[in-house]
Amino acid sequence: MQFNRSDIDVMSPRFRAQFINSLSGYKSANLVATRSRDGKENVAIVSSVFHLGANPPLMGVIFRPHSAPRHSLENLLDTGEFTLNQVNMEIYRCAHQTSARFEREQSEFVEVGLTAEYEEGVFAPFVQQSRVKMGLKVVDHQIMCNKTELVVGEIFMVLAPAQSVVDDGYIDIAGLGAVAVSGLDSYHVGRPLERLAYAKPNQPVRPLVCETAQSE
Amino acid sequence: MQFNRSDIDVMSPRFRAQFINSLSGYKSANLVATRSRDGKENVAIVSSVFHLGANPPLMGVIFRPHSAPRHSLENLLDTGEFTLNQVNMEIYRCAHQTSARFEREQSEFVEVGLTAEYEEGVFAPFVQQSRVKMGLKVVDHQIMCNKTELVVGEIFMVLAPAQSVVDDGYIDIAGLGAVAVSGLDSYHVGRPLERLAYAKPNQPVRPLVCETAQSE
Repeated sequence: MQFNRSDIDVMSPRFRAQFINSLSGYKSANLVATRSRDGKENVAIVSSVFHLGANPPLMGVIFRPHSAPRHSLENLLDTGEFTLNQVNMEIYRCAHQTSARFEREQSEFVEVGLTAEYEEGVFAPFVQQSRVKMGLKVVDHQIMCNKTELVVGEIFMVLAPAQSVVDDGYIDIAGLGAVAVSGLDSYHVGRPLERLAYAKPNQPVRPLVCETAQSE
Repeated sequence: MQFNRSDIDVMSPRFRAQFINSLSGYKSANLVATRSRDGKENVAIVSSVFHLGANPPLMGVIFRPHSAPRHSLENLLDTGEFTLNQVNMEIYRCAHQTSARFEREQSEFVEVGLTAEYEEGVFAPFVQQSRVKMGLKVVDHQIMCNKTELVVGEIFMVLAPAQSVVDDGYIDIAGLGAVAVSGLDSYHVGRPLERLAYAKPNQPVRPLVCETAQSE
């Protein structure tokens, strides 16, 4: 079925939000955690984290104007630091609940039942119940053409279970129960199909042979 | 296990690429399709498409400098138009093969076994075998701090099976066999957990009640 721009423009705002949010495919599910200068902890689910580069290690995050993670955005711009914590199947309901519009005085950690955990030398909290976590410094901040805000963070620390990192550096996130989002509210776990070897012209596609790959 | 920045900096480039690419969680899998002014068709897999906004409907795509989708980037900047086509479980191997470094004269469509398909009034080709597809106009282009390039596209057309669009606008991408990527080369399908209702403070998390949701 073909939807033209005029069809999209007359959709109700909520219908259009679900529809357009479904188009990009699966989205990553992460908790952004911050602390204000006066010590208030914030945690908010974001489905807009994307890989920007490995060397230096950089992540991008999109924040919507006036949305629930607004306090997180203010904190990370003010303190220059935040953490990203992968959502897994044990905590996706708590993670979803962070999107409620809590008051500034309320800590989402307390309200939704997640635990803030600190590492030496890191100002922002990590989420104890997450299994793959990053500490980041803010290195860029831009207002996009639709007034959403793009924050680029440079990774200075990674926390991940040693046994989930396979020989070639890949982290078996399916084995760790990582969750993906589609639309605004649909949660999924991943079922691995296969890993594929580096593609070369005029050679057939072939599975990656990696003895320690644990995603099978 | 804790990995500090000094640990990351001494990883081999390939190991670090796998490791850092795994950290954001599941990534969307899309084929960007373009046509040059002189009629050469290009198609390339990208795992860096992200939702930027629903009104107007905007998608962001990150292109790496000197990577395989370079020809696609040149075409879309030159013609102002591209399509995004969700990768599904029937075509993920062909989609992966588009990442081989083909010569300019070679069309990845022919080389990997995908089919270009045209819609009236759209210059860029769609991928016939994809089930959820978008036509986009380039509305922004920025060089990021690490020399990757961010392209923002505004959606002017969507093609999706009517029966996959549920009552509230959500598209059942799991039912359509959509694929997610983790790391550089690991492909997954999604197994739906549940949809959750709009979160409100001081109300427990609850499943979305939506009779026509087909993802269960």
